[in-house]
Amino acid sequence: MLENANKTPLSEYGEFGLIELLTKNIKLKNQSTILGVGDDAAILNVQNRYQLVSKDLLMEGIHFDIRYYPLKHLGYKAIAVNLSDIAAMNAKPEQVLVGIAASSRYTVEAIEEIYAGMYLCCEHYGVDLVGGDTTSSVSGLCISVTVLGYAQPETIVRRSTAQTNDLVCVSGDLGGAYMGLMILEREKEVFLKDPKAQPDLDGFDYILQRQLKPEPRLDIVNKLKEKNILPTAMIDISDGLASEILHICKQSKKGCCLYEDKIPIDVQTYNTAMDFKLIPTTIALSGGEDYELLFTIKQADYDKIKDINGITIIGHITDANEGCMLITNDKKSIPIKAQGWDAYLKKT
Amino acid sequence: MLENANKTPLSEYGEFGLIELLTKNIKLKNQSTILGVGDDAAILNVQNRYQLVSKDLLMEGIHFDIRYYPLKHLGYKAIAVNLSDIAAMNAKPEQVLVGIAASSRYTVEAIEEIYAGMYLCCEHYGVDLVGGDTTSSVSGLCISVTVLGYAQPETIVRRSTAQTNDLVCVSGDLGGAYMGLMILEREKEVFLKDPKAQPDLDGFDYILQRQLKPEPRLDIVNKLKEKNILPTAMIDISDGLASEILHICKQSKKGCCLYEDKIPIDVQTYNTAMDFKLIPTTIALSGGEDYELLFTIKQADYDKIKDINGITIIGHITDANEGCMLITNDKKSIPIKAQGWDAYLKKT
Repeated sequence: MLENANKTPLSEYGEFGLIELLTKNIKLKNQSTILGVGDDAAILNVQNRYQLVSKDLLMEGIHFDIRYYPLKHLGYKAIAVNLSDIAAMNAKPEQVLVGIAASSRYTVEAIEEIYAGMYLCCEHYGVDLVGGDTTSSVSGLCISVTVLGYAQPETIVRRSTAQTNDLVCVSGDLGGAYMGLMILEREKEVFLKDPKAQPDLDGFDYILQRQLKPEPRLDIVNKLKEKNILPTAMIDISDGLASEILHICKQSKKGCCLYEDKIPIDVQTYNTAMDFKLIPTTIALSGGEDYELLFTIKQADYDKIKDINGITIIGHITDANEGCMLITNDKKSIPIKAQGWDAYLKKT
Repeated sequence: MLENANKTPLSEYGEFGLIELLTKNIKLKNQSTILGVGDDAAILNVQNRYQLVSKDLLMEGIHFDIRYYPLKHLGYKAIAVNLSDIAAMNAKPEQVLVGIAASSRYTVEAIEEIYAGMYLCCEHYGVDLVGGDTTSSVSGLCISVTVLGYAQPETIVRRSTAQTNDLVCVSGDLGGAYMGLMILEREKEVFLKDPKAQPDLDGFDYILQRQLKPEPRLDIVNKLKEKNILPTAMIDISDGLASEILHICKQSKKGCCLYEDKIPIDVQTYNTAMDFKLIPTTIALSGGEDYELLFTIKQADYDKIKDINGITIIGHITDANEGCMLITNDKKSIPIKAQGWDAYLKKT
């Protein structure tokens, strides 16, 4: 995807030309966006809501491998994972700012492709791209996204407010993104040995999509709102269920009890894990990048939540002294440990 | 500065440990900061003001050379250049978010040093560090900063609103940061040839400081406010005077007439440029990284501004059809061209 025949080197545009090319078709969608790209800063009108702000860096070779990651998907994902942080606060994302640093190996067309994915995600979730920065790097691609979201103060949900006996819920299913990555890595190895080999991706559609095109669960945020359920604590699952539930428990000063047999795992994830001789539960606990929502609700909300599609109750919150435990399928109680994806542990 | 004796590899901390180490002493300073580091997003209360948001990426090898850039200065500068964007909107910065991606060549102590510089700048300008992201990179250091600022809607100053006959003003003096860079580059060459050579930096204090520790001109923003002067347009000088005045003129659909003999250049900048056989005016026009403010005011404000220290009137705005002209010391009128620092042109 980086072949340079008939492609335009970045140097031909320069920074301002490139920004103009990439941002000329922006149409602002949110009332809170007063001024977008084109000045020293964007201008936002927040009125009487609280604002949420978060940012994430995506680094080539650490967070993605450009050899099998389509650029458009990469752009989409860079936005999606940031929107997911706002969803995890039970809020509505409205603006993003994008910084891209690319080496001269990347063409103008490649950067446009990344932006096309970004705009697609922005469009899908009604978010305005209001600013950023485009520059060069000595090697590799670096994508930095900042997201701004809004909520009424009383509806914002933090990580630190889970209460004993609250139910622990998770949206969607877990482990798929990691198994999708395993498939992509496997096909890369095949390709590196024999560049003429065609990738064998048949039958892995769902888990590949989980890896390549994660969706922020803003639909879950809306469903909870419709049902008048305010989670007591919430976080998005970027590093794996284990790591995230430990965040909630640590910050809430609580323990938890999760049930292995309740953890939602898609059949394709399950089968692929078995093929790789991996334990599906371990993948769900530690795989990461699913960008599902992990949240706690009051027991009194059980009747309201039980009929919402795509939400699974996987356990409950306990007092801190009971620890963070997983009840396995054979009824053993074992402590939950974070072995989630860690940028430093992975590559160093 | 990256020697690893008795230093801690990043892998020993992991992402969460490192974030905790780096952020544990934060004390929030602004009423608008409701929640800082530690959740999926920071929470801000913007009340009835407009919000300004901007971001910048600093890439090793492109924006800084780690061989002569002290890490603490680098941290300071990364924050300062972002605050400068908010100053350029005539607003007050209150929060920053920081993303750092570093290769395993960087130790925990090195990252702490960068953060120390960041906190110093935040402290100096009353800004809260409210979030961010710490991850690894395959090679090099990448610093991404997002800044949030606030202003009453009617006091925000854009680039696009300069009017014919407005006076063009600049704060401080220009070209120093570039000449400081030249000195650092020269000493690097000497060092590369003879690693035992001591750098000869004597007598270059001012221009080295201009390069290594730029200050956002929030003091000028305050002085203008005290004198009840609202600029008609404003921008900060990151790419050089020529590039910036062309931005104002293009976006305001105006021309301008600047006078070479009015452009403020410090004597150390001037003398160093002459030593390097460079034309001081060219350096002031195209050097960049001075982070001074370039702004326009109504002629009626002349009496109010003339006694403010550190502001120089360098010309006036004209109709667009008169072009953007520089009147040279020998009274020639030449078109102003942007040859400013351009990340793509510089390295590709």
